[in-house]
Amino acid sequence: MDNTPLPDNNKKWKLKLHEIIYEADTPNGKLFDILLLILILASILLVMLESVKEIDLQYHFWLNVGEWIVTILFTIEYIARIISVKKPWRYIFSFYGIIDLLSTLPKYLSLILVGTHALVAIRALRLLRIFRILKLARYLGASNQLTSAIKASRAKILVFIFTVVIIATIFGTIMYLVEGEENGFSSIPRSVYWAIVTLTTVGYGDIAPQTALGQLISTVIMILGYGIIAVPTGIISAEYSRSTTTDEHPKKGVANHNQDHVPLNTLSCQSCLADKHKDKAEYCYNCGHPLFIEKD
Amino acid sequence: MDNTPLPDNNKKWKLKLHEIIYEADTPNGKLFDILLLILILASILLVMLESVKEIDLQYHFWLNVGEWIVTILFTIEYIARIISVKKPWRYIFSFYGIIDLLSTLPKYLSLILVGTHALVAIRALRLLRIFRILKLARYLGASNQLTSAIKASRAKILVFIFTVVIIATIFGTIMYLVEGEENGFSSIPRSVYWAIVTLTTVGYGDIAPQTALGQLISTVIMILGYGIIAVPTGIISAEYSRSTTTDEHPKKGVANHNQDHVPLNTLSCQSCLADKHKDKAEYCYNCGHPLFIEKD
Amino acid sequence: MDNTPLPDNNKKWKLKLHEIIYEADTPNGKLFDILLLILILASILLVMLESVKEIDLQYHFWLNVGEWIVTILFTIEYIARIISVKKPWRYIFSFYGIIDLLSTLPKYLSLILVGTHALVAIRALRLLRIFRILKLARYLGASNQLTSAIKASRAKILVFIFTVVIIATIFGTIMYLVEGEENGFSSIPRSVYWAIVTLTTVGYGDIAPQTALGQLISTVIMILGYGIIAVPTGIISAEYSRSTTTDEHPKKGVANHNQDHVPLNTLSCQSCLADKHKDKAEYCYNCGHPLFIEKD
Amino acid sequence: MDNTPLPDNNKKWKLKLHEIIYEADTPNGKLFDILLLILILASILLVMLESVKEIDLQYHFWLNVGEWIVTILFTIEYIARIISVKKPWRYIFSFYGIIDLLSTLPKYLSLILVGTHALVAIRALRLLRIFRILKLARYLGASNQLTSAIKASRAKILVFIFTVVIIATIFGTIMYLVEGEENGFSSIPRSVYWAIVTLTTVGYGDIAPQTALGQLISTVIMILGYGIIAVPTGIISAEYSRSTTTDEHPKKGVANHNQDHVPLNTLSCQSCLADKHKDKAEYCYNCGHPLFIEKD
Repeated sequence: MDNTPLPDNNKKWKLKLHEIIYEADTPNGKLFDILLLILILASILLVMLESVKEIDLQYHFWLNVGEWIVTILFTIEYIARIISVKKPWRYIFSFYGIIDLLSTLPKYLSLILVGTHALVAIRALRLLRIFRILKLARYLGASNQLTSAIKASRAKILVFIFTVVIIATIFGTIMYLVEGEENGFSSIPRSVYWAIVTLTTVGYGDIAPQTALGQLISTVIMILGYGIIAVPTGIISAEYSRSTTTDEHPKKGVANHNQDHVPLNTLSCQSCLADKHKDKAEYCYNCGHPLFIEKD
Repeated sequence: MDNTPLPDNNKKWKLKLHEIIYEADTPNGKLFDILLLILILASILLVMLESVKEIDLQYHFWLNVGEWIVTILFTIEYIARIISVKKPWRYIFSFYGIIDLLSTLPKYLSLILVGTHALVAIRALRLLRIFRILKLARYLGASNQLTSAIKASRAKILVFIFTVVIIATIFGTIMYLVEGEENGFSSIPRSVYWAIVTLTTVGYGDIAPQTALGQLISTVIMILGYGIIAVPTGIISAEYSRSTTTDEHPKKGVANHNQDHVPLNTLSCQSCLADKHKDKAEYCYNCGHPLFIEKD
Repeated sequence: MDNTPLPDNNKKWKLKLHEIIYEADTPNGKLFDILLLILILASILLVMLESVKEIDLQYHFWLNVGEWIVTILFTIEYIARIISVKKPWRYIFSFYGIIDLLSTLPKYLSLILVGTHALVAIRALRLLRIFRILKLARYLGASNQLTSAIKASRAKILVFIFTVVIIATIFGTIMYLVEGEENGFSSIPRSVYWAIVTLTTVGYGDIAPQTALGQLISTVIMILGYGIIAVPTGIISAEYSRSTTTDEHPKKGVANHNQDHVPLNTLSCQSCLADKHKDKAEYCYNCGHPLFIEKD
Repeated sequence: MDNTPLPDNNKKWKLKLHEIIYEADTPNGKLFDILLLILILASILLVMLESVKEIDLQYHFWLNVGEWIVTILFTIEYIARIISVKKPWRYIFSFYGIIDLLSTLPKYLSLILVGTHALVAIRALRLLRIFRILKLARYLGASNQLTSAIKASRAKILVFIFTVVIIATIFGTIMYLVEGEENGFSSIPRSVYWAIVTLTTVGYGDIAPQTALGQLISTVIMILGYGIIAVPTGIISAEYSRSTTTDEHPKKGVANHNQDHVPLNTLSCQSCLADKHKDKAEYCYNCGHPLFIEKD
């Protein structure tokens, strides 16, 4: 694959960079991914530790140093990603592009805003960095059966949530009438909140029925909640079961030529960022741009 | 379909009105549905906000104005529905007819009852308006597989609830004896309430066992509850799984000519309110009355 | 069926009585069953109401009268059952025979023990009457698929409970070390109780981890509990699903000649109390005694 | 099988000992297993009772005596196991070997450490004995379908746990901002802990949202948690269902020659400890060492 003609406007090092960042099959690509993973987890740990007062008071300096190291490394990664793709705007406005930007921005903003005493705003901005955790989603392997099972039953799940909300609203209102303000059911929204807490079998106990009638109605909600939990389970279980069945016995089920069986590589196109190319593909199926994988 | 002979006693505008209200496939019908949906959600929001004391004190006037607007619009809708059907009584005494009436009545009653200091009664009547949420059920698409799965396993679900109640009664009584009044198990009904709270894994914690024996029995109830949650799930999962299987592979399963595959329109008969007519039907399958859809 | 030769030692009225009590298909049998159902529910309601102090203080006399009526009617039923079967001892020592005796005894015992100031003992005896609720189990239709699904997976359920107990013991002990007495984890049994409360997602909150490490370990237990709830569900779901599949498509599955398809009657043998006779059976399959159903 | 030539360096009594300890099919082996089971349960009960202050104060002497008896018996078992296998180191460094050592060690260490006032360390060491409960795992029958179903869906379960942690981290951070310190959400780790408590429907109630917005977000988490509980259930249910299906109808499914159908004996090889030998095997499938079962 090394002798494919290179487009003129692409330097060798750009290609190399692209391969390291967007490709997970080569040793360099793997190393980059592992380092990034560690960096993300470290940065989330830092945000968390900073929020614990005792730790922040004692180690404020070191947490700040750690933050700056993480922020600078994320900035380098962000710039490298922009440089190595042909159409940077596509990356910048993609989902991960925005997440990557949000991961670096807050620390720089804290520098500018420090003088203006906008302490509360900074605090909120700092926490934006927690969204770095979404970067981990890259490693979840987005195309698994689970996601497709959930997608297939999306409409049914919405109907289910809608039903739960209707039931909670009606029962919440009834409990507001039955229990009243003196037992903690001080308004309908609060009663509906309680009804959802009960229906989903969470049961905090911060609000709990005190009257005999209220407790009777509660048991109805509980048994209802205990029963209808079966509904989402039934939906996903059936969808998932079907998807795996047709997956394993393709001749028995519907003609479902599942793409999972085609060997795919982990490369994304340097030009349009499309991924899931076939293992032997030499050109992007989306924009026709050549795909390069340097063999080490 | 425009040249079907019109019955003499039906004016053109009545037909038009019927089409707007009961038909969701034409642009006018769709617009009406969306406006109604927004109106219902707004009215429920108003009822909820009114129950929050702080909000009611501050915005009482505007909430009242909003209430009157919603009530008048619902009244117009109610009258329009009565006019546009041939046999109004059928609509009035139908499930949705009663819901529609209950949605408008309370505000008018509050006018009459204000002079009589019947404040508590009004408050309860006002909350009747929350039942408007049931109007949303129209949009749930009543004929889905879920409902049929639940219907098919109705008898088993009843047996299950019955079993849960029996287990809760026995364990509740035992706990009443073991823990006694001093630990919050002050009567058998209250202990049974606790047993249901525990069995359904809600676990408020407002009543909790204090003695060692009581805690031991509790763990038995918990593991029991944790285990038997599998039962409704198993029932619905199996029923649902079967219904979707026969749906997809009709030749493999029982000869189950599921009507879902017949293209249906969203029109309901002007005369008898029956719906789920075939897409090409020109006469009501229930009463033989002609069905009109004006193409725009 | 009327001309089957009657055994000499059986009087006509005994047969009639047997039919009313043990047979649910004849009008008299049905009426008896419904009356008994109401009586059982009434008696349980009485026991429950008696335990509520305020109600007992106000209506003590009427509750006592109700109790005596119920007790006398149950006594008559008990005697009638003994008379109408050929081998009374079989009934007396059967599961329902003992339940029936326990339902009547306590009230009589309370008469004898009143003089002896044995108040606590009486109180406990009174509550024995709650076991009448088990009589309702007769109406559950013991031979349904659910029970057979549970029976089929009995061994797996035991392994599952065993696993839950082992996990709870280990995590309970760890939490006892981590949290210690000052945070409510005062002994290992109490910590194991807490671990089961958490693992089964009941979550009372009477004991809750306070230290950071304790909360971290708790989240592990919670996610574990949240995950392994799938296990009993999966077991019963699969067993139930299979049992209904083979039930509906007997040719596809294993040669499973399910007896549910054989029309059974509700008669039980007058001599040995065996039930589930075939609809056309004239002799008991268990003891060979003739079965009589008088057609009205 | 008795006339298989015995290797010279194995004495008759060693073989006998091996058979008793590692073989569960002979009467002696069964007796040994039952006695060991009782001993393990007794030792765990002792550890638990010791942790209850009131019991420890009153019965300290007897608990100590019981502990010594159990410890000495476990020591004998440990030594017997080492003697009866050909390659003792294999056993010593096996999973159960380490568990067996940890079960005996703490009591002896408490003797040595008593003089050094290392009270806290001893206390922790004592609790190591709770790991004896893992010895019970031997009786669980490790090779059942359940374990294989869980193993088959391991990757999916990990993705699921990962998703739960990501959701909890994001929602926990949001709630930390919304509710703040004054409502108990004093740091991000604590808020994430709360989010997991809510998502898994445990719901202690030690921390509960107080603001309207916080309660609104909570209901989203609850419904999310209530819904995604379906995911692990769906996974295991489908895997389990498939494994039992292919198990029962081997010709229909994939060519899955499940070894469960081969009659296995409970013997483990005296030389390499490998088990699951075929019922008629005379030599170890792993090391070729002859297997001896003395028929009584």
